[in-house]
Amino acid sequence: MTNCIIASTSTLHGSQPLEYLLETLEELYQGQDEVLFIPYARPGGITHDEYTIGINNIFKKINKRIVSIHMFSDAQEAFKNAQGIYTGGGNTFLLVDQLYRNECIPLIRDAVMSGTPYLGTSAGSNICGLTMQTTNDMPIVHPPSLKTLGIVPFNINPHYLDPDPNSTHKGETRETRIKEFHNLNTQPVVGLREGSWLKVEGDKITLGGNLTARIFEKDKTPYEIEPGSSLSELN
Amino acid sequence: MTNCIIASTSTLHGSQPLEYLLETLEELYQGQDEVLFIPYARPGGITHDEYTIGINNIFKKINKRIVSIHMFSDAQEAFKNAQGIYTGGGNTFLLVDQLYRNECIPLIRDAVMSGTPYLGTSAGSNICGLTMQTTNDMPIVHPPSLKTLGIVPFNINPHYLDPDPNSTHKGETRETRIKEFHNLNTQPVVGLREGSWLKVEGDKITLGGNLTARIFEKDKTPYEIEPGSSLSELN
Repeated sequence: MTNCIIASTSTLHGSQPLEYLLETLEELYQGQDEVLFIPYARPGGITHDEYTIGINNIFKKINKRIVSIHMFSDAQEAFKNAQGIYTGGGNTFLLVDQLYRNECIPLIRDAVMSGTPYLGTSAGSNICGLTMQTTNDMPIVHPPSLKTLGIVPFNINPHYLDPDPNSTHKGETRETRIKEFHNLNTQPVVGLREGSWLKVEGDKITLGGNLTARIFEKDKTPYEIEPGSSLSELN
Repeated sequence: MTNCIIASTSTLHGSQPLEYLLETLEELYQGQDEVLFIPYARPGGITHDEYTIGINNIFKKINKRIVSIHMFSDAQEAFKNAQGIYTGGGNTFLLVDQLYRNECIPLIRDAVMSGTPYLGTSAGSNICGLTMQTTNDMPIVHPPSLKTLGIVPFNINPHYLDPDPNSTHKGETRETRIKEFHNLNTQPVVGLREGSWLKVEGDKITLGGNLTARIFEKDKTPYEIEPGSSLSELN
């Protein structure tokens, strides 16, 4: 049975990475000792090794070890024994490009669909949607496709930001960009504010955290849903 | 001789589209009666016809007529007699996808390189760089390539936004995104604030408007350049 946490962000302002999610993660990875980390979204600044060590230090707090996919010579091998998966944030174009190059898309999907617990934050959440077309990131690389895992039957917009009513900036607001997406695409988009996550358990999808989320459906006025709401019927 | 205006935005807060640029455009299109408009960036909301009529109403003020590329059955025909070109804003992924589909990339480049005056605003400016990889837009379509016109030997980031020092948001700032770009790519990026433009005359590139621009070079601290500065040596 699918068992996923799809979070808007790894880190909340003024707190440590994943701190606000630790209890949720203890429940998600219950019974597992080791989590397979996917650091591919990180565009530099720190190496995959450093990124992995940082994540391991966090997961230690809930008594889990991290192994990272970049430590295996063969991605297939890494997934064969994966007890749990965590895909971290960074740049979604880079993440998706690396997933395609390393032929990981079907491997992650198969693992998740067969019940391996999965955590995504930011870019790692974006890829849980049907496509990565509602990312906020810059196209620093050109992946072969924008199709992603389709763990949920809609798209995710992580780090969702409300328009600033006092702004004099003429660049598009997030809402306008998603509206543009809907001029050419039909799937709903879930705007997840920082601090929110989706919990996927089998066919059940629920909004976690204390904030409302903003739902965008083609040709409908966007609307808010309350924490704890079901999104199982959204598609 | 190349003769281009590459503007951050068509519209400034509190003013009409292109109003702040009208004098500059009178000079750019001096001696021309008709300008070929490229509306491809517009993702909907208004039709290409409506977009074109709106632009024609603006260009009327400087005694120019607009013809739009979508009115021709054949793009090649449209460019054969083009006296001037204007590529408007919208979504850069859509614009570039449409330019590739309609085989316009070499047509615009050849026209510009042989001296046809060119105006780009926002998405229409982004495509003047080497690639569109420093766009702020969402990938609402997947173009076959991110390579663009290369009228200037660097990339453009239009609608450049300074980080908000009071923000609690954890999504990347514009500066961080451009730094991520430079982890994987080498060309400089010019962050053009709304109200700024680049004037390209032959080999001369100059910063227009009243604002400084922010220059990002790989492995260098970003720096500001004053209005009127030359960018002819940036590559």
